[in-house]
Amino acid sequence: MKIAIAGAGAMGSRFALMLAQAGNNVLMIDGWQAHIDAIKANGLQANYNGEEVVVKIPIVSQTEVPSDEKFELIILFTKAMQLESMLQSIKGIIDQNTKVLCLLNGIGHEDIIEKFVPMENIFIGNTMWTAGLEGPGKAKLFGEGYLELQNLGENSEDNAKEIADVLSEAKLDARYSENIRYSIYKKACVNGTMNGLCTLLDANMASVGATSTIKVMCQLIVKEFASVADKEGVKLNQDEVLELIYGSFNPETIGLHYPSMHQDLIKNKRLTEIDYINGVISRKGIKYGIPTPYCDFLTQLIHAKEEIMEAK
Amino acid sequence: MKIAIAGAGAMGSRFALMLAQAGNNVLMIDGWQAHIDAIKANGLQANYNGEEVVVKIPIVSQTEVPSDEKFELIILFTKAMQLESMLQSIKGIIDQNTKVLCLLNGIGHEDIIEKFVPMENIFIGNTMWTAGLEGPGKAKLFGEGYLELQNLGENSEDNAKEIADVLSEAKLDARYSENIRYSIYKKACVNGTMNGLCTLLDANMASVGATSTIKVMCQLIVKEFASVADKEGVKLNQDEVLELIYGSFNPETIGLHYPSMHQDLIKNKRLTEIDYINGVISRKGIKYGIPTPYCDFLTQLIHAKEEIMEAK
Repeated sequence: MKIAIAGAGAMGSRFALMLAQAGNNVLMIDGWQAHIDAIKANGLQANYNGEEVVVKIPIVSQTEVPSDEKFELIILFTKAMQLESMLQSIKGIIDQNTKVLCLLNGIGHEDIIEKFVPMENIFIGNTMWTAGLEGPGKAKLFGEGYLELQNLGENSEDNAKEIADVLSEAKLDARYSENIRYSIYKKACVNGTMNGLCTLLDANMASVGATSTIKVMCQLIVKEFASVADKEGVKLNQDEVLELIYGSFNPETIGLHYPSMHQDLIKNKRLTEIDYINGVISRKGIKYGIPTPYCDFLTQLIHAKEEIMEAK
Repeated sequence: MKIAIAGAGAMGSRFALMLAQAGNNVLMIDGWQAHIDAIKANGLQANYNGEEVVVKIPIVSQTEVPSDEKFELIILFTKAMQLESMLQSIKGIIDQNTKVLCLLNGIGHEDIIEKFVPMENIFIGNTMWTAGLEGPGKAKLFGEGYLELQNLGENSEDNAKEIADVLSEAKLDARYSENIRYSIYKKACVNGTMNGLCTLLDANMASVGATSTIKVMCQLIVKEFASVADKEGVKLNQDEVLELIYGSFNPETIGLHYPSMHQDLIKNKRLTEIDYINGVISRKGIKYGIPTPYCDFLTQLIHAKEEIMEAK
C-alpha cells in the first residue's frame, strides 16, 4: 500500500520502519531538518529490540511535499499542536480515496482533520506501542504493543478493517474497535493525570503515585473527563480508569518512567500537548456547561511553566 | 513590660531585639536547639539596617519553659503547624492576665489559641515587617514596616491599644485596626496565590507574574478566598486585592524575591504552611458549602511536592 507517515518522530519512525519492512511503499514527512537530513544521508537507523537495523525510506520536509502524488493511506503522528500545519502542508497528496488515520495523543483531533478530509475517510486510533529517538535519524524501538482503530464515517467499517489488516501484516497488531472513543478517553485520562502532574511536580510516576494526595487528584481529574465524555455518549467506568492509572505507579513496571510531557518540557524545554489533553476537557466543559476546575488549573499551570522555561 | 516571644525565628528575633532595646523584659522561646545555644553563648546577633548589633536576651527551649513565671504579653511567631505544640509548651506562663498576640501568617489561628487562652485575651495582627536569619543566632533585619492588630474579645479594645503602644515605643509602628480580619484576609490572598504558585512553578514572583495565565489563576483563587471571607462577614474587594498581588510582580520592587514557602520547601526542604493558607479556605469551604477547587488542588499539589522532596 502507498502510505505516508505525516510526523516521523519516534513513533512515526516505528510505523514507517515496520510498514516498509513489510513491503509497503512508505514516504516519511517531517518538520525537523536535522532528522530529515540524517535519514536522507544514512537511511532510518534503529535499535530494533536490540538489533541495529538501517532501512532506506524516502523522507521529505513538510515544506516540500509533492503535490502530484496521491496516497492511499496517511498516518498522522505529529505533536497535537503541529497537526493543522501538517495537514495544510500535505493537502496536495490527499484525494477522495485517501484514508487518513489519526494516532495522535489526546482528544478531538477530528475537529481539525475534518477541515481537510471528508469524515468517511477519517479513522482514529489509539496506540499502545512505544518508541524513542536517540538523535536525528536514529530510533530506539523496544517491546511489544498493539493499536486499536475505528472509522468515524458511518459506512467505513470495511475500510477500517482493511487498514487494520495492512498494519497487522507489518506486525503492528492493529485491532478494529467497536468503540474507539472509549479507548481514547481512557488513555486521555492516563495522560490527563500523569503527564501534567509528573511535569509540574518534576517526578516520575512511582514518586507521584506514592504521595498521599495523588488519588484524590486523579479522582477529581478523571471525574471531569467522565462528565465531558458522558455528554459525547461515552460512558467511562471511572473505577476501571483509576485502576489503570494507579497501575502506572508500580516501580516494577513503568513507575520509574517520566511521562512524555515531562520529557518534552522539563528535559527538552519543548511546548507540551496540554491543550489537547486537559485543555480540551476545559474547552468541551465550557461548551457543555460542565465545570472542569482541575483540568483548567492544570492547563494554566503547565502553560505558566512552559513560559517560565521559555519552551519552544 | 514582661514579654515572651514564642517562636524566635527571623521575625521573632526582630521583635525580641526591638522590644528589648526599648527596655522591655523579654524572653525568647524557640524549638531550634542550635539557635538557642548560639543566643545563649553569644547573645542575639543581628545585621540591623547595616549595623552589626549584639543584644543579650534570655532564651529557653520550648521543652524547658519555666512554669513559675507569668508574662503580661506573649507574642506568637511560630510556623503555623507548630502553633499548637508551642501553646502546649507555654501553658505554664499564661495566667488570666496574660495577653496573647498572634502574628502568624495565615487564617484561623484563633481556633487553636482559644483552647489555651480566653477570647478576651486574644489579639490578632498582621505584620508588614520583614526579617531573615543568616544562621543560628544571627538575624538580618532590613527595611521598615508596620503592623496592625485588634482584639478578638468584645471589650478588649483598650488592651489592644495598650499593646500597640508598647510595640510602637519599640519603633515597631503598631496600629490599632478596626477591621483586622480584612487585613488578614487580604494578606492571606497574597500568600494564597504567590506562595503556592511560585513554589510549584519554582520561579520568583516576577517570572510567575509575567506568564499569560497568572491573572486568571489569581482571580480564581482570590474569588474562593472572597467567598469564604464573605461568610465570615468580611467583604473583600477583589479588585483591590488583585492589584496588591499584581504589584508583587514588579521586578523593581519585590518581584525578584521568592516567597517564604519557596524558601521553606524548594530551598530548605521544610514542610510548608499551605494548610493554613489555601488549606484553611478548603476546610472553611466545606463548612460553608462553597466549592474551592483551586485552593483544594493547590494544597494537594504542594503536599505532594513536600512528600516527593521528603520535606521535614
